[in-house]
This record gives sequence, structure tokens and C-alpha cells, in this order.
Amino acid sequence: MGALLLAEEESPLITVNEQGRSPFVLICEHASRRLPKRLGTLGLSEEDLARHIAWDIGAENVARVLSRLIDAPLLLQRYSRLAYDCNRPPDSADAIPEVSEVTVIPGNRNLTSEERLARMREIYRPFHDGISALLDQRAAQGTRSALVSLHSFTPVYKGKPRKVELGILHDRDTTLSSRLIKSFPKVDARLNEPYGPRDGVLHTLNMHGFVRGLTHAMIEIRNDLISTERGQDEWAQRLSVPLIQAATA
Amino acid sequence: MGALLLAEEESPLITVNEQGRSPFVLICEHASRRLPKRLGTLGLSEEDLARHIAWDIGAENVARVLSRLIDAPLLLQRYSRLAYDCNRPPDSADAIPEVSEVTVIPGNRNLTSEERLARMREIYRPFHDGISALLDQRAAQGTRSALVSLHSFTPVYKGKPRKVELGILHDRDTTLSSRLIKSFPKVDARLNEPYGPRDGVLHTLNMHGFVRGLTHAMIEIRNDLISTERGQDEWAQRLSVPLIQAATA
Repeated sequence: MGALLLAEEESPLITVNEQGRSPFVLICEHASRRLPKRLGTLGLSEEDLARHIAWDIGAENVARVLSRLIDAPLLLQRYSRLAYDCNRPPDSADAIPEVSEVTVIPGNRNLTSEERLARMREIYRPFHDGISALLDQRAAQGTRSALVSLHSFTPVYKGKPRKVELGILHDRDTTLSSRLIKSFPKVDARLNEPYGPRDGVLHTLNMHGFVRGLTHAMIEIRNDLISTERGQDEWAQRLSVPLIQAATA
Repeated sequence: MGALLLAEEESPLITVNEQGRSPFVLICEHASRRLPKRLGTLGLSEEDLARHIAWDIGAENVARVLSRLIDAPLLLQRYSRLAYDCNRPPDSADAIPEVSEVTVIPGNRNLTSEERLARMREIYRPFHDGISALLDQRAAQGTRSALVSLHSFTPVYKGKPRKVELGILHDRDTTLSSRLIKSFPKVDARLNEPYGPRDGVLHTLNMHGFVRGLTHAMIEIRNDLISTERGQDEWAQRLSVPLIQAATA
């Protein structure tokens, strides 16, 4: 079956610093608000397409700076999570959300099975295959890997303000998260907040980390703290310190 | 990466009556108690390897007879669910169970990531890719598909007897299950018993059915009712009636 969605557009996988020597492999599923051309605007305004519902504001640059600081490979997903949320299992209704927070996504309603399959096959599959391939390659070279995914969350969700500044999320593997949570004494940092594994947000880390037995953690930064380049640099630096320590431990 | 598990053994996918003209595509993930040679006996006795923990007793033949009666394609998984449970997401600990019911599975403990990956890649992946390929092929031919998976359950689980004889399981799609449940007035038939979607047992149907928007149902027969060929034939016949009716509706 040929490409029904991306046609001549680029692959969803963006690989940065592939040969990075850190044990950490950084992942950013919600880096971008770009939409595949065939999806138009999904029926949304420019304003909505700039909001957190379309992407994790600030996360891409935090991830890119962190990748340089700790010399880690970074895998970014090129398209908006409104096109396909690569951090959800394909049988979850959230993978192609019809409503995000309180905003209806007209272009995600009444999809045919061909449209739904095309998004899964052309966005989810190559992105996750790319993660697998990099992890295979590192394993074949005898390089240890641990997974860290980078996200941001909105300071106000469905009208409720969130005080937490940094969420360290984990599911069954707590090795890295329990270490990281101690590393931010001056920050309102919490484990599995503002959401956690019960909300189904650990998909990428569970899929790749659990099957391979890799330690992993998901990092969520409140997006008002990383809405500027300065904030992004600052947070990348903060995160780099415990990760470099953990890498050499 | 070459085959680490199956080596020169056969593919996990067994396709029966591929050109069957029924809208129903039958699936039997737990058809067999055969183990890949490299796994030996998983450290279990012959007796344990004959129990329900290794396979769905009777389900294969019910599925084969039903496939003939309704002229439906049938996809069977060739290896024991103790090697890999194809009806669980790969990030579930149940996919390669260390304990099944109350029996420890020694050969599933302390697996390396290579061993775990090999089972997923050589059993789960080709089986599910085979389901996708058949559904793609039918869609390309303009053939309507609906999914029915066939299972059996033990009459006594962890010491507790089960009265239910027939379970019709569904998750978000209730179209077919609500129809089927009315078709067995003389049987103790129940919806989402003896377990249901919250137990994570709808994986195959959700993965293929949800993404493609296909109606689907999971059929669970108490295995003492289908432990003989006669029982298997009888149940295949019983099931064929409402399925043929639904197919022409």
C-alpha cells in the first residue's frame, strides 16, 4: 500500500546526534506542531494550532540543547500529536483525538479506516521503528541505553491551575525516576504528576523500555517555564546535571 | 537481526481457508501448546504443558470446524501462549508470563532483553502482521470484514469454579456481542465474563478492530464443554448459526 498521508513529505522521524555517546537516548514525541499537508488545518484556527493541544511547547529545544550538553542521541517526531499521538497505543482513542482538552478537532472526526490506518502506518510505525533500530544498533555495538522522554504540560488544564513545575513519570521501572526526583530541591518536582501511567502516557517508554529491560523516565516541564529560549536553555542545563551523574554512576 | 528463537522452525502464523467468503475473519491466538524447540519445556512438566495455562484447550478445533461451516478464513497461532501471548500488548508483563494461574514458568524468568525481543519479533510480530495483511487484502478486494476470536477458559481458576459456559467479550464495540449474547438462550452465556476488557484480554481485537473500525467479538467457551471432538463440533455448529445470520443481516 502506498503512502496515503505523507505522499512526498518527510518521514516522521528526525534523528539528532545519532552517534552520541551518552547512555541516554532522548525521545520527544510531541516536538512539533507541523501538520501533514493532506490534513490541512484539521479544521482548527491558527490560534488553536499554536496551543499545547498541538505540541509540547518548548520541549523540542530543551531536548536539542540537552542532547548537546550530555552528548545523547535524540529522536524527534516531526508532526503534531493532533495528526497522530505517538505516545499512545494504536488501539487507544487518544491516538487520533477527536477532542483535545476541550477543543473539538473536526479533521479527526468520522475518519475512514483507511485514513486511520494511514496515520498509524505513516507516522506511528516509522517513528517507533526508528527508535527500535537505534536501540538495536547501540545494543549490537555493546552500548548501554537508557530512555528519557521530554514533554511539557499546560499550566492550566480545563480551567484548573497546576502548581507542579516538573513531573518525573514512571511506571514499573523506578530506578531512574527515584534518582531524578531528588535532584531538584528548589523546584516543585513530583513523581507521576500532573498525570501518570494510569492515564496511559507511558506508552513509548513501556514499549521500548520494558521489552528491552532498559531503565527509563519521562520528564514533564510546565510549559510557561520553557516558553522562551532562555527558559529552555536553563532547564536543559538543570536536567543535564543529574543525567550526567547517573550516566557515570 | 537473524532469528534467535525460531531458527529454521515454522512461522507462527497458520492460515486456513484464506479465501473464505464470510465477512467473519476468525482468530485463534492460543490454539496450540507447541513450544519453539529452543525453549525446551520452559522447565515445566508434561502435565503442566497439557493444562490450560499452555493453550486454550479445544479452541483450535472449534475454530477449524466453524471456519468450514461459515466459510471464513481462520488465522491460528502456532506456538504456546507460554512462549508468547499474542493477545497481550508487548509492554505487558503477561506477554511472557513468569507465573500463569499459580504455576511458575521457570523458562520465562530472568530473560535477557535479546530473548524477550526475539519472542516478540518472531512470534507476536509475524502473527499480527499476518492478520493485518489478510485484512488489507480483503479491504483491497472490497470484502467486508468482522473479527471473531475464539478462546476457551478453565472451569476452575485458582480453586474457584466458574458457572458461566460461554463468555462473549467486547470493549468499546458492542454491535456484534450484543447480537450474539441473545443467540444462546439455553446456555449460561454472559457478556464480559469470566473476564473482560479491564483484564487486558481484548488486545488483538482492539488493535485490528478499533484501528480499522471493524465490528468484533471475542468468544470464550468453558473448556470442559469442548474437551472432546464431539463437544467441539457441537459448539462450532451452535456458533455458526448466529454468525451466518449476522453475516447476511
